[in-house]
Order: sequence, then structure tokens, then C-alpha cells
Amino acid sequence: MKENILKALKDIVGEDYLLTKKELTASYLYDEVEEAYRPKANIDSIVIKPANSKEVAAVMKLANEWKIPVVVRGGATGLCGGCTPVEESFILTMERMNAILEIDRNNMVAVLEAGVTLMDLLEELDQSNDLSFPVHPGDEGAQMGGMAVTNAGGARAVRHGVMRKHIMGVEAVLPNGEILELGGKLVKNNAGYNLMQLLLGSEGTLAVITKIILKIYPKDRSSATIVAPFERFEDACQAVMDILQSGNIPLAVEYMDKHLFVGTAEMLGLEWQAKRGNADLLIILSEKNEERLYDACREINAICEKNNCYETLYAGKAKEQEELLLIRSQHYEYIKETICDSFDMAVPVSEIPAFISDLKRLVKEYDTSTNVIAHIADGNVHNDILYLKDGSIPPYAEELKQKMYDACFSYGGTITGEHGIGKIRTEDLTLQKSPVELELMKGIKKVFDPNHIMNPKTVLM
Amino acid sequence: MKENILKALKDIVGEDYLLTKKELTASYLYDEVEEAYRPKANIDSIVIKPANSKEVAAVMKLANEWKIPVVVRGGATGLCGGCTPVEESFILTMERMNAILEIDRNNMVAVLEAGVTLMDLLEELDQSNDLSFPVHPGDEGAQMGGMAVTNAGGARAVRHGVMRKHIMGVEAVLPNGEILELGGKLVKNNAGYNLMQLLLGSEGTLAVITKIILKIYPKDRSSATIVAPFERFEDACQAVMDILQSGNIPLAVEYMDKHLFVGTAEMLGLEWQAKRGNADLLIILSEKNEERLYDACREINAICEKNNCYETLYAGKAKEQEELLLIRSQHYEYIKETICDSFDMAVPVSEIPAFISDLKRLVKEYDTSTNVIAHIADGNVHNDILYLKDGSIPPYAEELKQKMYDACFSYGGTITGEHGIGKIRTEDLTLQKSPVELELMKGIKKVFDPNHIMNPKTVLM
Repeated sequence: MKENILKALKDIVGEDYLLTKKELTASYLYDEVEEAYRPKANIDSIVIKPANSKEVAAVMKLANEWKIPVVVRGGATGLCGGCTPVEESFILTMERMNAILEIDRNNMVAVLEAGVTLMDLLEELDQSNDLSFPVHPGDEGAQMGGMAVTNAGGARAVRHGVMRKHIMGVEAVLPNGEILELGGKLVKNNAGYNLMQLLLGSEGTLAVITKIILKIYPKDRSSATIVAPFERFEDACQAVMDILQSGNIPLAVEYMDKHLFVGTAEMLGLEWQAKRGNADLLIILSEKNEERLYDACREINAICEKNNCYETLYAGKAKEQEELLLIRSQHYEYIKETICDSFDMAVPVSEIPAFISDLKRLVKEYDTSTNVIAHIADGNVHNDILYLKDGSIPPYAEELKQKMYDACFSYGGTITGEHGIGKIRTEDLTLQKSPVELELMKGIKKVFDPNHIMNPKTVLM
Repeated sequence: MKENILKALKDIVGEDYLLTKKELTASYLYDEVEEAYRPKANIDSIVIKPANSKEVAAVMKLANEWKIPVVVRGGATGLCGGCTPVEESFILTMERMNAILEIDRNNMVAVLEAGVTLMDLLEELDQSNDLSFPVHPGDEGAQMGGMAVTNAGGARAVRHGVMRKHIMGVEAVLPNGEILELGGKLVKNNAGYNLMQLLLGSEGTLAVITKIILKIYPKDRSSATIVAPFERFEDACQAVMDILQSGNIPLAVEYMDKHLFVGTAEMLGLEWQAKRGNADLLIILSEKNEERLYDACREINAICEKNNCYETLYAGKAKEQEELLLIRSQHYEYIKETICDSFDMAVPVSEIPAFISDLKRLVKEYDTSTNVIAHIADGNVHNDILYLKDGSIPPYAEELKQKMYDACFSYGGTITGEHGIGKIRTEDLTLQKSPVELELMKGIKKVFDPNHIMNPKTVLM
């Protein structure tokens, strides 16, 4: 990076907040994507830690003038290489912009700087004792800016939906350094094109989100987790659809292949209690009070029974529930050594049985297997392609992936339900989207970022 | 319109579905906007009634080649002149594309052609006896395409939010005749920029929406309407905020100035039962069963009492509830002769008391008054500027409007919560939006519609 640029950056953020030495920048290059497909970072990139939107704006203006790529870094919990700089870039890390600016009870909104982590927010809301925020992408190190710009999902989307449903306003800095205020503390707002919704899910390719106005909610008082073991996967799926139609909408409905529940529990020194069955659902309920919780449990139990479930297991105590969630969340530790590529496809809920059956059939064709973990009531499936026994990438990996995608497309599915495109799925996106739609996306990119400095090689090739 | 164009159109839709005679096209020129500000229609415009997306695509291709403006017409229940052709245009009416293509219970979605009216949909769902769709902009003649492209709101947004929260996919025809499929029966979908969300609220200026995949919901079994009369408006507003924080989210919370409740009831040969108080709330509750309904009623009653409400009136029977809703919905008939301009501003809920007080103060300055009707829990206020006694537009109308807007902006508000910009608020929009944001909108418009044929002079000037 040229000296005059470094000088200008120091003038903006101060010397302490500019990292140029490789031993300091090294930890700012990657996210959580599988190593086999991790994009190669440009190690000459430098790290900038702005304190506020004005500093972000000044940095962007400079980058735009010099046509230097800018990669915004949130909690770096992404799974598709989105925040890895592949050209010599400014890495704009939001870690210092971590103020919870306001918890506004009258409007039930939180105003947050982009660098506030999900954990920070949840801790703040916990202190209030009666407020909550539902979206939970799993890793609480995720920052609100990143969650916004990737439209984060997670297990708890069944009842509450994904991030874009909860964002009422953002402050965003354009590549040219202009600061935009979009939306506000407004339940309804139909003035002009909704640029905010366009930024949500744009993965840092259009603007830098610096502030978020987030809807918050009254806290449910009662929760429980049900384990429902079925003999047949199809029965489990039918139960899911029946539950959704019943109006007893759970917080989450999770599925994992049985061996993952059993093996992960064992790894953790626990025991998976559901001994019978081949297809277990983990159903998380959250209700306003105990009475409603029992009602929901009773109705959901009846639905499971009707669909040939073995006896359900009920966890009402906090510790029991935590154990179940731990097993669910730690499965990755159990299998990660074996995973070469992992996926995030989504199909209509009704198509889940056929789609999973296709996935299982496809891996058999290549004499391998696949682990299936699903936010099943969202139709969102995480499965994988495994390394060969010697730890190498299988020669059929690309071919198998494309066949999996084709199966997904045949059910009206998408290659990514929640993780996004990032840098590792830009080519895959062209399989899903028509040239016309891709051209529109490129046109929009050009309107926001004519010099093409925002997170190059992300979303679009 | 040139003969060769008419010939080409006849070849596409058939002679019967092309209206060129002025006595036939006359009823296709306007929407429900106040007459004083109604845009002047170009009466040489012709009406085209396509049967399907392919015909829409062929018409668009033709229009694009000849650079002829296209105005898409849904139910024409809009309130800002959006579907009035102000240049010699193709009026593309969706009335024949009115098929309910699918009610898919497994995925809880309806697949609808754009011309399906809200009434059609509600009737179809009523037959099922256990399905519902919440968004209700008041006039059930509204078509789903129009409701999508204007991001319709209405009273029932308190619990369920506006149209964009319920649309999972659309089919849209671009100005160049290309057909796009956006989204699908997918709960989660993060593949690329969300062009669908961009189309929602674009008021027919970017593309023609021809098909909609709409989320539907289990039907609530029990409903009630509470009338809560307060002496002080501020107390009523505090009660609204307390209710929203309690987690007892009503379907709707409506406010009207007392004289509107009393006068409209009288006009209808009914009687407004709440004799005491100056600020009445109409609170509509809808719950899964009777038990939950009573719970919610009890808690809401307690909140109202705490905020100095006079005794609440409870309507549980269908007929009683219908009467109350009739009074609420017919207020316009009661005052319409006096209304010169009417508004749709929205502010944060907490700012409602100050904002309404500003509005009342402002009209006093001009020795006039204003009727206030509000979707109060959404912060969405409909008020008006009245004609002078002789029926003429007051000379201060523009000045007063701008002062009302300034008050709205001072609370972080928007000039339109739900009605949109249409053709009558394009200049007003420039008061709210920064030049930078307007430039981005123009850039996006150009990407979708380079020949500027889609609904000219709408949203953007």
C-alpha cells in the first residue's frame, strides 16, 4: 500500500487503528468456510478500525478515489469466504463500532452500531428481563452489521423468520462516502424504492452498513424442547407440516441424522436418550406462559403420535434443554475433520423427503455418504461432501455438487437458504439464476459501486 | 395510436381484449385519489387485457420497441394516482389473469395470478374453513398484483405487518419482455440480491408482476373488538404502547377523532356506544381459541384501566363487531365532500401524541380543522386538508401540507406509510429523500427500464 494512502488513513482513524504488519493483519483474513474451498487471502491487505460512520465515510471516499477494494469485516462467522480479501484491500473491521445506542421500549426497537455482536445484544436484553430478539444464526460472535448484510437466518426462523423481517432502518455508507439513512423507527414506510431491503443480503458489495434499527420483542416466559423419534423420515416430515398447519408454530424444528445425535452426545460425555427410531426431530417451543406451553406441547405430541412417532421425550428444565441444544450445536465438532464441502440448500418444506432421498441416493452413486442436518421446518438443509479416506478432495466433488444442485433445482430450491453466496458460490449462482437476472444484479451493483471497490468477487463473479 | 401497433396488439391478445373506444376506456383511467389532486388522464390511452404472462411479455416487448408508456392496472383502489396514464399509454389491466392457481397446504402458500382480488382470495380461504391471509388494505377489490407492487398495509398490520412480509415469490415481466421468476415456495433464500423485495413497493415502475406466491396462515378461531374510551389522547397513546410491550399483539388498533365515530354511526342509523371520553381506541383481537382471547382481553383491559380509560365496551358477537368495523370503515363517506387533500404520514408510535398535537395546532393557524384517523399502533396517520366553505381549494393548501410534512420529518417520519408516492407525491418525495438516495433510485429505474416506459411520472418525477 502506498505511503501517502497509509498517511491519509492514519489521519482519518489514528495510527493505533491502522494495522499494516502481517503478524497483526493475519487474524483478519478469513471466516469459517471449509478450508478445502477457502478463498486465498491477499496478505498485503491492511486493517482499518474506524470509530464511527464519519471515519467510515472518509475511508470509503479515499478508497473510491484510489480504486482500492474494501472488504467489510463483521464477526467473521460467515461460511462462504465473504470477508476474505482476495485483492490487496482495505479490511474495514467494525469491532470498535460496538455501541448499543438505544433500547427504545416505547417503539420496541434497538438502535445498534454495526459492530455490536449478537451476544452483546442478547446480554443487554437479558438485563431488561422482558425483552428478546429472536434471530439466532448459531454463533453469537456474529455482528449485527454482518447479520443484516447477509440476511442471517438460523434455527429460530420457523416462527420469527430471517433477519430482513426485523430490520426497520439502517445507516449505510456508499462507496463514494455519502451517508444514507434508510427507513427508521417506522412500522410502515412506502416512500420510494426500498433500498434498505436491497442492501440486506447484498453481502457487503453495495454499501457499508454502519447502524441498524432493529425490532425487539416481548420475551416469552416459558420454553421446552421435545425430542420426537420416528421410524420413518417421511413420517417425521409429515409431522412437521402438520405442526406448521396447526398454528402451534415452534421456535425451531431441527433434524439431524441419528448417528449425529448419538455420536455428538457421546463425544460430549452425554447420552442421546431417544433409543428407538431412525429420524429424530428436536422441537423447540417458546410461549408466553406455562399454560400456552402445555397446550402447544399437547397438540404437537398428538400430531407426532398421529404420524407414528415413538414416545416423545420432554425437556422442560433449563439444564435438560441446554444439553439437547449443545448436542445439536456441537455436531460439527464431531464430524468436521471429514467434511470437504458443506451446503446450505433450501427447498419447499413439502419437498424435503424427496430431496433428502435424492441426496442419499446421489452419494451412494459415488460410494460415499453425506451427513444431513436440517432446519427442517424451513426446508433448509445442510449436508456435505466428505473427504476421501486419505484426506484429499474427491475427484468427483464438483460433479456430485452439481448433481445435488440439480436435485435442489428440480424442487424449486435455492443453493443457499441462509449462508449466502460469498466468494465460494459465485459460479454456482449462475446455475440458479437466469442471465437476465444476473444482468440486473450487475446493473444494480454498478449504480451503487461504479468503481467496483466493494468486496470484489463476492456474490457476482 | 398507430394502426400497425393496434394490429400487433390484436394479434397478441385478440380483438375482444383490446379497447380503443373512449366510451370503453373511460372507466380505466383513474383510481380513488381525491379529485382535487387527481392527475389528468391521457384519454387517448388504450386498454389491453392479457390472458397470461406470455401475452404480457409480448405486449411489453412491443411497448419497449415503440417506446410506448405502459400503465399496469390492478383493482384501481390506490389513493395516489398510480394507475392513471398521463401520457398516451398502454393500460395493461390484469382483470383476466385472476386464477387462484394453487392453495398449497403443505407449504402454507397460495399461488395467485396478479389479477386475483383480495375478495377472491378471502372467499377461497373461507371455504377451507381453517386458512387465512391477514393483510387487509380496506378495499377488497384490491388485486394481489397491486397489493404486492404497492406493498399494501391497512389496519391489520399491527400483528402481521405489511405485504412484503408475506410474499415469498413473484413472476415478473420486465419492460423488455423477459419473464423473471423471483423467490419461490422458500422460507429461506439468500441467493443474490433480493430483486423481489425491490419490486415490492416500486408501484409498477420497474416490472409487471404477473404471479405471486403468498404465505397463508392457520385461521384464528376467536375474535373480539374492544372500544376503549379515554379522556386524554395521550393516555390512549400510552395504552397502545403498553399493549404492544405486553405481548398481547392485537390484529388492529384504530383511532378516529370522536366526532367521526359519533357522526358516522349516526349517518348509518347506528349509535356510538362510548358516550364518555374524547379519545376512543378500537382494538381488534384475534386469537387461536376462546381461552387465549379472554386472556388477551383481560390483560388489555387492565392496561387501559391503568391508563385512565373509562369502562371499555366489549363486542364478542359477530354482528356487534361488524357494526363497529362498519362505523370505522365508513367514516370517509361521512366526510368525503369536505376533503380537499388527504395524507398518509407515519411516525414512530411514541411520537404520535406530539405529532397529532402539531397537526391540530397547524390547522388552527389557518383557521381550519383536520380529521385524524390513525392505524395508531403502526404510527400511521391519515389526516386531511379541508376545502374552503365554498368548495374551493384553499390558497394555503400547499403551505400547510409542507408544514405538516416538516412536523412529520421532525419525528423521523415518512410522507407515506402505506399509500405510496404514485403520481401525486413525486415532488413531496424530494422533500423526504436526499439527492443521493433519489439518484440511486433513478439508477435502478434505468437498469430495469432503460427506455423509461413503465408508469412514467410515478414515484420519481
